[in-house]
Amino acid sequence: MPASLASLDTPVALIDVPRMQRNIQRMQQRMDALGVHLRPHIKTSKCLPVVQAQIQAGASGITVSTLKEAQHCFANGIQDIFYAVAMAPGKLPQALALRRKGCQLSLLVDSLAAAQAVVDFGGHHDERFAVWIEIDCDGHRSGLRVEDPSLVDIARTLSDGGMHLCGVMTHAGSSYELDTPQALQALAEQERHACVSAAQRIREAGLACPQVSIGSTPTALSAQHLEGVTEVRAGVYVFFDLVMHNVGVCSADELALSVLTTVIGHQKDKGWIITDAGWMAMSRDRGTQRQRRDFGYGQVCSEAGDWIDGARLTGANQEHGIITLERPENVDITTRFPIGSRLRILPNHACATGAQFPQYSACEASGEIQTWSRLHGW
Amino acid sequence: MPASLASLDTPVALIDVPRMQRNIQRMQQRMDALGVHLRPHIKTSKCLPVVQAQIQAGASGITVSTLKEAQHCFANGIQDIFYAVAMAPGKLPQALALRRKGCQLSLLVDSLAAAQAVVDFGGHHDERFAVWIEIDCDGHRSGLRVEDPSLVDIARTLSDGGMHLCGVMTHAGSSYELDTPQALQALAEQERHACVSAAQRIREAGLACPQVSIGSTPTALSAQHLEGVTEVRAGVYVFFDLVMHNVGVCSADELALSVLTTVIGHQKDKGWIITDAGWMAMSRDRGTQRQRRDFGYGQVCSEAGDWIDGARLTGANQEHGIITLERPENVDITTRFPIGSRLRILPNHACATGAQFPQYSACEASGEIQTWSRLHGW
Repeated sequence: MPASLASLDTPVALIDVPRMQRNIQRMQQRMDALGVHLRPHIKTSKCLPVVQAQIQAGASGITVSTLKEAQHCFANGIQDIFYAVAMAPGKLPQALALRRKGCQLSLLVDSLAAAQAVVDFGGHHDERFAVWIEIDCDGHRSGLRVEDPSLVDIARTLSDGGMHLCGVMTHAGSSYELDTPQALQALAEQERHACVSAAQRIREAGLACPQVSIGSTPTALSAQHLEGVTEVRAGVYVFFDLVMHNVGVCSADELALSVLTTVIGHQKDKGWIITDAGWMAMSRDRGTQRQRRDFGYGQVCSEAGDWIDGARLTGANQEHGIITLERPENVDITTRFPIGSRLRILPNHACATGAQFPQYSACEASGEIQTWSRLHGW
Repeated sequence: MPASLASLDTPVALIDVPRMQRNIQRMQQRMDALGVHLRPHIKTSKCLPVVQAQIQAGASGITVSTLKEAQHCFANGIQDIFYAVAMAPGKLPQALALRRKGCQLSLLVDSLAAAQAVVDFGGHHDERFAVWIEIDCDGHRSGLRVEDPSLVDIARTLSDGGMHLCGVMTHAGSSYELDTPQALQALAEQERHACVSAAQRIREAGLACPQVSIGSTPTALSAQHLEGVTEVRAGVYVFFDLVMHNVGVCSADELALSVLTTVIGHQKDKGWIITDAGWMAMSRDRGTQRQRRDFGYGQVCSEAGDWIDGARLTGANQEHGIITLERPENVDITTRFPIGSRLRILPNHACATGAQFPQYSACEASGEIQTWSRLHGW
């Protein structure tokens, strides 16, 4: 345990930097072996030093969930940025401003209306926007199904309208609901096949569709081959979390984000240990609720990070977390977890928990702790 | 609808300032009529102009959920601040620093261990901390039950240790689970009675217990009398939200916080309208899930704020919200909710949704919109 951990006020979000670096290496090596580029989704960390570590390990460009992330990363020297949320026409002026400064920003559409809005705005401002088309490979959210008649129309609208069609992209978000290697491999293949097929449809119509971008952390780590794919986007692998642990794509010692908390009270009759990490620190994300193992609001570890079996954050108010033990017999909670003692909580969902904090405390193997700021808002 | 609403980027958190002012007046007048001070809990807004409006309306001091809120408010001229989370011994240096600067900061304990830590630290630094004792009136979280043998011991430890015992406090947090006037009135009386009885126990032991502080928004608005109580703490009333609407303590036209969002896509076959307000904007709070009416992630309104019956945000990814209609028949969602059109979403829980934003856009009756910054983190 780094000596300087004791100097941190709680609650605080800790990054285990060696674990994070191993996670980055693991995904990069896998993508290298599969012969595709990795374009990490930075919505998980929203933190420049983390993104820089991903780029240093070999990432080709980044994916963002907000234009604020794009602005921040471009201001810090990152050029190739894919804003992977269907473009709201009202945000086009912001996108234009970024491109005019030299950012290689690319946009996403999944409707003729949005494609036409990009074409109209681009034409009006003499800007050749770079645009992707979103494909729906698993019915979980946005995108066009491969057989959608408007797929080729959208591609043609963009091309004829003078925009640059980057290619097609999809995200198998339903992978979060799976938990066997067989199901994950099948979905990874479904994701790949849908996106490659969509690209083929566009190409068969005589249009260029240079890139095929897929990805989610579970499918990226499960795909057996990625023929026809040019790049993979994945985000949460950088920290992993309990949801990913339940999905089965990471081990407990790969979980790189935790919340350091202080014990502030007990309800001895009920076996409750009360901490200063409530839902404001952990977020309200209950992503493990319907998974094979429900971790409540998080798995409890010692201050040093060792998993305490059966100890979970089962209740949360704004600034109060309630820890209970699966086997409370023979444990005097007031002496085992005295007031003022510290624990770490592993979160269900790293993207949601990180967002509750303005910064991370990044713990190096040497024990050194650095403060890494994090983007908040839009 | 203020003309300048169109200039805002989405998602953005809107405060309807006239509604907020009416909510503030309503609670203040009720507390005045009941003959108690109001010490609003600012954890809902974490926003100085909101807090200043509460003070201007007659509030006596404030309640905070973090020392960061205390530091920020004290730096802006607010003196009387109650940090109403059981004191972690490690935070005492921060509390001392505030008091040394002249802040009338008061602290909370609910254990002998914490009381002793305050006494030891206060003695060591020659500081007479002002301290409350937390009472558990409904078993929902922290605090000592009235009959707890250590209640008087804690009071004596503080007094004998040279600290100033402010009094006793409780919070009937279980009021959020109720939804009838009868049950709310009964819990309000239970809350009052428990806290007054605890004060009596301390006084009967020959110790001073000047103040009796209770409160939650539902019980504050339901109490029939507050004999023996000196002050009420309540927070969410300033904005109200769908949880409070289900509890039955506010009407739809008192909901003062909403999230403005843009339609970015459709899945026509499924009747999905996809927006740029996902869980990152709304929070993951599903507080209405077990209430009489489940609003999903929020109730959908027109851009002007008019409730669209049966339209709810039923799904949420990080930056995607999925709106569905209860009666989708005969609605062409692509023309009724076209891409680029805007909607407002009323949140389940104002405290959680507000926390997702670095600032609010405060809409005055005149149409003027001001940016009010909001605290984030600890």
